[in-house]
Amino acid sequence: MKKFINKVDNILTESLSGFASAHRDLVALNLDPNYLTRAQKVQNKVAIISGGGSGHEPLHAGYIGYGMLDAACPGQVFTSPTPDQMLAAAEAVHADKGVLFIVKNYAGDVMNFEIAAEMLPFEHATVLTSDDCAVVNSTYTTGRRGVAGTVIVEKCVGSLAETGADLAACKALGDKVNLRTSSIGVALTSCTVPAAGRATFDIAETELEMGVGIHGEPGRRREQMRDADAIVNDCVQAIVTDFKAKGLATNQEALLLVNGFGATPLMELYLIYHSAAKQLAANGICITRSLVGNYTTALDMAGASITVCLLDDEIKQHWDSPVHTPALRWGR
Amino acid sequence: MKKFINKVDNILTESLSGFASAHRDLVALNLDPNYLTRAQKVQNKVAIISGGGSGHEPLHAGYIGYGMLDAACPGQVFTSPTPDQMLAAAEAVHADKGVLFIVKNYAGDVMNFEIAAEMLPFEHATVLTSDDCAVVNSTYTTGRRGVAGTVIVEKCVGSLAETGADLAACKALGDKVNLRTSSIGVALTSCTVPAAGRATFDIAETELEMGVGIHGEPGRRREQMRDADAIVNDCVQAIVTDFKAKGLATNQEALLLVNGFGATPLMELYLIYHSAAKQLAANGICITRSLVGNYTTALDMAGASITVCLLDDEIKQHWDSPVHTPALRWGR
Repeated sequence: MKKFINKVDNILTESLSGFASAHRDLVALNLDPNYLTRAQKVQNKVAIISGGGSGHEPLHAGYIGYGMLDAACPGQVFTSPTPDQMLAAAEAVHADKGVLFIVKNYAGDVMNFEIAAEMLPFEHATVLTSDDCAVVNSTYTTGRRGVAGTVIVEKCVGSLAETGADLAACKALGDKVNLRTSSIGVALTSCTVPAAGRATFDIAETELEMGVGIHGEPGRRREQMRDADAIVNDCVQAIVTDFKAKGLATNQEALLLVNGFGATPLMELYLIYHSAAKQLAANGICITRSLVGNYTTALDMAGASITVCLLDDEIKQHWDSPVHTPALRWGR
Repeated sequence: MKKFINKVDNILTESLSGFASAHRDLVALNLDPNYLTRAQKVQNKVAIISGGGSGHEPLHAGYIGYGMLDAACPGQVFTSPTPDQMLAAAEAVHADKGVLFIVKNYAGDVMNFEIAAEMLPFEHATVLTSDDCAVVNSTYTTGRRGVAGTVIVEKCVGSLAETGADLAACKALGDKVNLRTSSIGVALTSCTVPAAGRATFDIAETELEMGVGIHGEPGRRREQMRDADAIVNDCVQAIVTDFKAKGLATNQEALLLVNGFGATPLMELYLIYHSAAKQLAANGICITRSLVGNYTTALDMAGASITVCLLDDEIKQHWDSPVHTPALRWGR
């Protein structure tokens, strides 16, 4: 294992310190318990808090700022944060309109955020993200996994919260965006968790893992490596099938997020985008909003995921609205 | 070689098409000859044009837009674009105040941009970037290589050009930023050029390449892998030594760019940032501007570079000014 680290035990603290220092105009870091907030506290809005294991950067701390999160709680690599982090973060950013947790559906995260929610002295609600259509139940989950679609949920809910909307409205929008979002990922290589010091799984030079999770957990099946168009076709079909199973009409406008897992060149991500947009159009889905890059990673895994969010006027409005965070910034 | 591609010959066209489609609000693509411009032509400014081999995305097309480039000419992977691309791009974006080429110092790029410049029917000048302090002369160069510091040159010159400044002023600022910028890179793995189909160089699990170039060309020496702090120390010392050799005082404010080569997790880049900012401070260099991420890549290479730009009031003003491109966006 070759990584830019000092001691494995200190990776998280050193990396968070660098992040907070590089973005000190936008975010502030508290260590022990670990959480990050906006540099300036905002009044009179629902506090939007997310969190989860580290290793998926820029998720979640990269999305703290105007129009998105108020705070994020980073766990150790691929490990849920603990309730004391969530409670301390909520104390720090609560602004009299309640707290909304946005939680990716993994057993550890769900349990810890539930414990924190029960102890919260504030009005609260939780949006569970479960956009990964690859598998139902997995190494880390009961039910579908929350993956890159979480970024879209955080963007839209964060936008709505800035308008002064109440907790119930923020929760409802989060649930709606999650329902209308479907993702699937493909791994070409494993990731390497620093504390483990070796690849999470073995994969041959001729193979890919279709439906892989963002921790390197198994997907649908191990397959033979093939052309990008053929890989993308299988992803697009999985997503379209998922929308149909949810009873969602697919002849509409959509946002296409092509997400790199950490070690995939941008050149390939744009090639995937080109292929996916064409194939979605052939299925009646017209891409009018786009995001391409490393937004929900799996450490150093080579691979990518495709996420499609079916838009409506409300989602478009909140996707397009200004956002000012370390990892997403536009409109002001 | 596992990559998300269809035919090797079509990678560039498919990837550029995806890029142009994903960012159609900002850029427009011309194929054959290949060049990209802003979606809307701007009048009454110096036209800023860059270009170079592909595989370094988001460099250069990702920097087209308000406050940065007017056009970019992508060559094949790690191969200079040709003069016809540069001439066509210049025709498309020239707006009666002349053309400034920003060219990374590699023999092929320099030659082709020179040929284009000689044929240009417009007033023109060229800024050659040569920020890499690792080596003088290399596989691809006579003299120092242009690497990630090119992004800082493009940002500052692009900002100045928006003010209506003339060609000589833009050229002078570009040369000044280049002089005040020093970079060095470290590779942990090789990249794989698609057309070659195999790693550009072999490197053991216990080794790193200190001073590597952005095409995987050799650096200063092959070394034993060690702690991030020790690696960063060698990089910081190389940069400080370079500034001193240039006669630049180092007890001043600076911009720190920690650049990933394509396969390095963001978590590690922020850890490097943390280490580099501390070590630069110990050398009297106070970091007041920051950029961390994949800004000048080498396909799928694991590794990173450190770039320091010594600031003055003019450079700060142009770094901070609004920019609106696919890969850099702030301030409006």
